[in-house]
Amino acid sequence: MYERTYNFSAGPATMPEAVLEEIRDEMMNYRGSGMCVMEMSHRSKVFQEIYDNAEADLRKLMNIPDNYKVLFIQGGATLQFSMIPLNLMKNGVADYIVTGAWSKKAFSEAKKFGDVKCIASSEDKNYSYIPDCSDLPVREDADYVYICENETIHGTTYQQLPNTKGKILVSDQSSMFLSKPCNVADYGMIYGGVQKNIGPAGLAIVIIREDLIREDLDPKVPVYLRYDTHAGAGSMYNTPNCWSIYVCGKVFRYLLDQGGLEAVAARNEDKAAVLYDYLDSSKLFNGTVEKEVRSVMNVPFVTGSKELDAEVVAYTKAAGFDNLKGHKSVGGLRASIYNAMPKEGVVALVECLKKFEAEKA
Amino acid sequence: MYERTYNFSAGPATMPEAVLEEIRDEMMNYRGSGMCVMEMSHRSKVFQEIYDNAEADLRKLMNIPDNYKVLFIQGGATLQFSMIPLNLMKNGVADYIVTGAWSKKAFSEAKKFGDVKCIASSEDKNYSYIPDCSDLPVREDADYVYICENETIHGTTYQQLPNTKGKILVSDQSSMFLSKPCNVADYGMIYGGVQKNIGPAGLAIVIIREDLIREDLDPKVPVYLRYDTHAGAGSMYNTPNCWSIYVCGKVFRYLLDQGGLEAVAARNEDKAAVLYDYLDSSKLFNGTVEKEVRSVMNVPFVTGSKELDAEVVAYTKAAGFDNLKGHKSVGGLRASIYNAMPKEGVVALVECLKKFEAEKA
Repeated sequence: MYERTYNFSAGPATMPEAVLEEIRDEMMNYRGSGMCVMEMSHRSKVFQEIYDNAEADLRKLMNIPDNYKVLFIQGGATLQFSMIPLNLMKNGVADYIVTGAWSKKAFSEAKKFGDVKCIASSEDKNYSYIPDCSDLPVREDADYVYICENETIHGTTYQQLPNTKGKILVSDQSSMFLSKPCNVADYGMIYGGVQKNIGPAGLAIVIIREDLIREDLDPKVPVYLRYDTHAGAGSMYNTPNCWSIYVCGKVFRYLLDQGGLEAVAARNEDKAAVLYDYLDSSKLFNGTVEKEVRSVMNVPFVTGSKELDAEVVAYTKAAGFDNLKGHKSVGGLRASIYNAMPKEGVVALVECLKKFEAEKA
Repeated sequence: MYERTYNFSAGPATMPEAVLEEIRDEMMNYRGSGMCVMEMSHRSKVFQEIYDNAEADLRKLMNIPDNYKVLFIQGGATLQFSMIPLNLMKNGVADYIVTGAWSKKAFSEAKKFGDVKCIASSEDKNYSYIPDCSDLPVREDADYVYICENETIHGTTYQQLPNTKGKILVSDQSSMFLSKPCNVADYGMIYGGVQKNIGPAGLAIVIIREDLIREDLDPKVPVYLRYDTHAGAGSMYNTPNCWSIYVCGKVFRYLLDQGGLEAVAARNEDKAAVLYDYLDSSKLFNGTVEKEVRSVMNVPFVTGSKELDAEVVAYTKAAGFDNLKGHKSVGGLRASIYNAMPKEGVVALVECLKKFEAEKA
């Protein structure tokens, strides 16, 4: 009926086919409402129900405690890079751990707004590892410690959370959102753009402990950039990205039906192993990060030769695999294998890489 | 095949059925790309083409001069309320004309950032008219003059633009975007949320004269809130709301196929006349604004009795017309009859109102 490609894009990224089919079937008339979700007033009962179900299903999936608010905010992770310091700094002090391009961007932006320090970094080895975070020089008056828990470009994931010495932990989970269970109470705030592991771009989900949402901010903070604006209005201070909320809600439901995050994590581990096992045994390809911290979501790898890398990318593209070119700061190839990438896609990719390797041997 | 309601929502609002059908048909595999637009990397050729076509078609529709940039930014008009003063104030001075709820919100937000003055208002008569703007006390050092050209809640539209005495005019066109031709060169900046007259919420379109995009801003302005951030990256500094851009692009193309904005305006006038003619002849209903400035997009009307108003809303709802309840600050009813509302919808509504009036007579 329709042919779909295996899409290894780092984001926006592949989505569950079953979810897309549902959306298609509801396009002209959502469940007897007489309209498409794109046409619905965000103040209507029918949309409020979509919203409430999405939030409830996300809470169930992640087992979010009652004292955490879930906010749906536009502007992606980039807007959060500013909102976090503007909202969470009381003392004007924050400590960042820089493990790749995204934590570095967040760090640079936060520096505009206070005394922000990088307390650990893996930049010396092009972000190919996660520093030891068991005894960092977290400052006494730090308002929070910041991490990017999975670096999309560099392909690393924290295996254990940093010892923040009692300070609040803020984590960018964009490229690992809902990829495995997580204990929300370990964090002050978790957030992520949805366009990698959940739904259509244009939405960030913020899960924040209620007591961190302050009203006594600098009065010059733009109204849209205040968490209390969104929290006080059920994320509908202004018209939200209703479509993305609708689609994300469907993905939450889909993941629940698939057995929840334990089951999702098991499938992700299994799927990533197919690719990593091959890379470990290959004489042509090498992963670019330390084994202990490699991501099950984003898998960068190289041949060691730029020309050969470009050749592989073209070869996989010709074989029907999309978006495998690595980010320029790492080079080589990168396979993003989010929740919605079926295992068959990874198996097929490995077959293709093996064939290439054999031809080159 | 499917039954659709007549949806008079003020926004998000009704969309062209033909556009929705196209989107539905492209859901599982956009034109042979093997993926849905929601799954496409914003850095891919296939998405860049969608983006470029959308911008080119908007430029054609509005006849946008080459020295204006078109930006697609998340956060709706609300984020623009902050971005405008943060970016356009050089002297820290701006003059606002307040003609309804939306210009008042923009005015309140701008006051955070400089010496911002309301130089004309129609608040004395609940925003039922547009003040004479031919000789306003625009300040010598004002960086811009601000208007909301069509007030969605109060139902007024400027019939001629204010005399800004040489200052830059900034106009919120959210609820009249693409409803009629407009001479872009009369403005320094035109912007609007797309969720009323164009496509799905989560996107504002900003049309701004290039020389107004500054790099010498206060370094504390958040990176996402700088026009130069978006202008310098073709609106892809970070992942944009790709889906909304895709859908808006389809609407631009649809409007071009319908004959462009001259033709659209003629249909809108004709359609609004059906409702206004009835209201003018009705003994039960009255429009709430001065005839000369009434909007062809948003039509508020009342019976004079709250009980009766509520009864009509319920009556129309039972008859299959949606979202006719007026905003609480005006009361009564409001019919939003944007581009995509077919004339038959307005004719049917008038029949329904006539029937109600006859029953009450």
